[in-house]
Amino acid sequence: MAKSNCNDCTCRLAKEVCQLKAVVNAQSKTLTKLVRQIRDGCRKDEEPKESTLCGLNPCLKCLNPDILYHLGLDTETTDFPKVFGDVRFVCMGGTPGRMENFAYYVMQEIGLKINAATQLRDIAEAGKRFSLFKVGPVLCASHGMGCPSISILLHELIKMMHHAKCQDPVFIRLGTCGGIGVDPGTVVISSEAVDGRLNAGHEIIVQGNSILHSSQLDEGLAEDIKMCHDPCKDKYETIIGRTLCAHDFYEGQSRLDGAFCEYTPEMKKAYLEQLQSQDIKNIEMESLAFAALTSRANIKGAVVCVAILNRLNGDQIKTPHEILAKWEKRPMELVTRYIRKVLYFNASDSESDQLEEDECGEGPQDKEGSPQGGAGDTQKAPEEAAE
Amino acid sequence: MAKSNCNDCTCRLAKEVCQLKAVVNAQSKTLTKLVRQIRDGCRKDEEPKESTLCGLNPCLKCLNPDILYHLGLDTETTDFPKVFGDVRFVCMGGTPGRMENFAYYVMQEIGLKINAATQLRDIAEAGKRFSLFKVGPVLCASHGMGCPSISILLHELIKMMHHAKCQDPVFIRLGTCGGIGVDPGTVVISSEAVDGRLNAGHEIIVQGNSILHSSQLDEGLAEDIKMCHDPCKDKYETIIGRTLCAHDFYEGQSRLDGAFCEYTPEMKKAYLEQLQSQDIKNIEMESLAFAALTSRANIKGAVVCVAILNRLNGDQIKTPHEILAKWEKRPMELVTRYIRKVLYFNASDSESDQLEEDECGEGPQDKEGSPQGGAGDTQKAPEEAAE
Repeated sequence: MAKSNCNDCTCRLAKEVCQLKAVVNAQSKTLTKLVRQIRDGCRKDEEPKESTLCGLNPCLKCLNPDILYHLGLDTETTDFPKVFGDVRFVCMGGTPGRMENFAYYVMQEIGLKINAATQLRDIAEAGKRFSLFKVGPVLCASHGMGCPSISILLHELIKMMHHAKCQDPVFIRLGTCGGIGVDPGTVVISSEAVDGRLNAGHEIIVQGNSILHSSQLDEGLAEDIKMCHDPCKDKYETIIGRTLCAHDFYEGQSRLDGAFCEYTPEMKKAYLEQLQSQDIKNIEMESLAFAALTSRANIKGAVVCVAILNRLNGDQIKTPHEILAKWEKRPMELVTRYIRKVLYFNASDSESDQLEEDECGEGPQDKEGSPQGGAGDTQKAPEEAAE
Repeated sequence: MAKSNCNDCTCRLAKEVCQLKAVVNAQSKTLTKLVRQIRDGCRKDEEPKESTLCGLNPCLKCLNPDILYHLGLDTETTDFPKVFGDVRFVCMGGTPGRMENFAYYVMQEIGLKINAATQLRDIAEAGKRFSLFKVGPVLCASHGMGCPSISILLHELIKMMHHAKCQDPVFIRLGTCGGIGVDPGTVVISSEAVDGRLNAGHEIIVQGNSILHSSQLDEGLAEDIKMCHDPCKDKYETIIGRTLCAHDFYEGQSRLDGAFCEYTPEMKKAYLEQLQSQDIKNIEMESLAFAALTSRANIKGAVVCVAILNRLNGDQIKTPHEILAKWEKRPMELVTRYIRKVLYFNASDSESDQLEEDECGEGPQDKEGSPQGGAGDTQKAPEEAAE
């Protein structure tokens, strides 16, 4: 046998061992759980009375029904705890198509499946603004472009988590960005979001007054996602750094190719170099609102973007479509590995224990699925909310 | 004959007379034009060398090709003067579906048609962010939500107008809004857009510095569109007033139903009453960037929105979907009447002369169409730009 074949074989076996260990681990937990249930006389676990979110609008409980207008959902026609109560990861990205692809990718990678005669349904279709797909414990939403757009989505998703009594949901934005002094194709995980003046705060104008909310992101979550990068296998870098969030793609990011440009190429160069000297690794357009709104609700949040160009070398995005598509998958791969790890590999993690109780029998190798929980839930999406 | 039948009959005849007059008017111009061409030895009119837009980025001419990234178009694979050179109206609204419906509605109302075996194509499909439909001289685009989103679209549409050498294009945003002291269903045409502090300026941060651009809108255009309202026929009001542009749907508009709310119902009431005392008629989320970017390019712009609720009476949008859909058509009807009027009824308007030269034989009653110009152009959309 040639040496390379031998290596391939070893690699395949190692992968299989790893997957089997995950299944054994998941099955062990399910067994423990079942034994405990039988011992306790099949007493059902008490459902949580409230979500773990903090600092929310005290008036929410008075809204009966609460209409999530841009998602086309309301608490009267949709049973939020039943439909969304198992959500643990809320992933969001710019376009509907990208997030639909991501939903199918996550489904495959965490070993869930749906009936072959069905497809994932856009749960927010009636709202006509965002798309929303549910794959077991993972929600995948499109957020459009810019802070105002993502802020509408976040307000409504946070209200959804509240009404559904979700426990410790993690929010992750996956996207593309312009890199500052980083190679195109590099994945940047944001340590914090800063505004155009490099302040780590998201300003909103409330009743004529400026209010600043901190835009720090969860350090531990960023590290956990970075750890999912495999330097041997992944032919790209993954770094953690500061992210500048602009409210405009052209002048706000000092591009020379907008309809208007009232500065010189030299001024642009000096500005980008100044950003680089301040440890800014990338520029995108949603992280400020994302960081501010998630942290206000005590939700762990991460922003994971792939740089599609190095802004020190240009403004226009000339990379062929097929390479861009390949790069766009990198944040998806990393985040999916993270989700998979939390769901199946964190044996000592008490959060993980909770999931295994809900998702029993649906480990990565369980291709037959089971009637309870998992991707099957995607078919229980609220049909009443459709037009 | 019953009296009501007689009235119906009179009404039908009056409408027919009106339409026939328009055709006669259009045909007369075409005849004049043809006679002039024969007299001048069929000399082709010189094509304009430049667009009429002002104040644009001087570097635009150096971009070869210029990539309109979010529209999925570029000047290398699309012949902009050929495909978009005849555009005179650029209409935009929030969602792709609404703008596609609007495109078909405009097509019918200005008497253009496409081959029965074809449909309008989303010219910006490859960009995956916005939708874009072309119906003869009318472009219809979706802009998403918020100023950052519409600013990306506007930069790229303004560059498109420039590259296509368009002459005096008029930009109109059609949308929905929250009314301030106005009945739901009322159409509000904005006189100017103001920010959360009631300043009539759009702030952008360029290279760390705050730059303020005036957000006045074209007074004459607002009046012209308002004149298209028919108080006898239209069972709603159309008013002109100041528009507050917020960067957030919930706290930025003082709603009590967001995920977060750190003010009391009394504070909200006082704030909205203060807005009312300052002649603010409505709140939406795109007018600041729209007004600032169009006026910088010397483009006449209008914002025409229907109020879907009176914010003094509540926050949640509880109106049934079918009534909302009816209301959403009102700005479309008004704007289409305006376009139709400019195209076919402004006999003394020199701009109108120009159109009749391009669109000859395609008046509102010309159901057979003609091989040159008109809605047939929609089929000449840049296929090269598709993925």
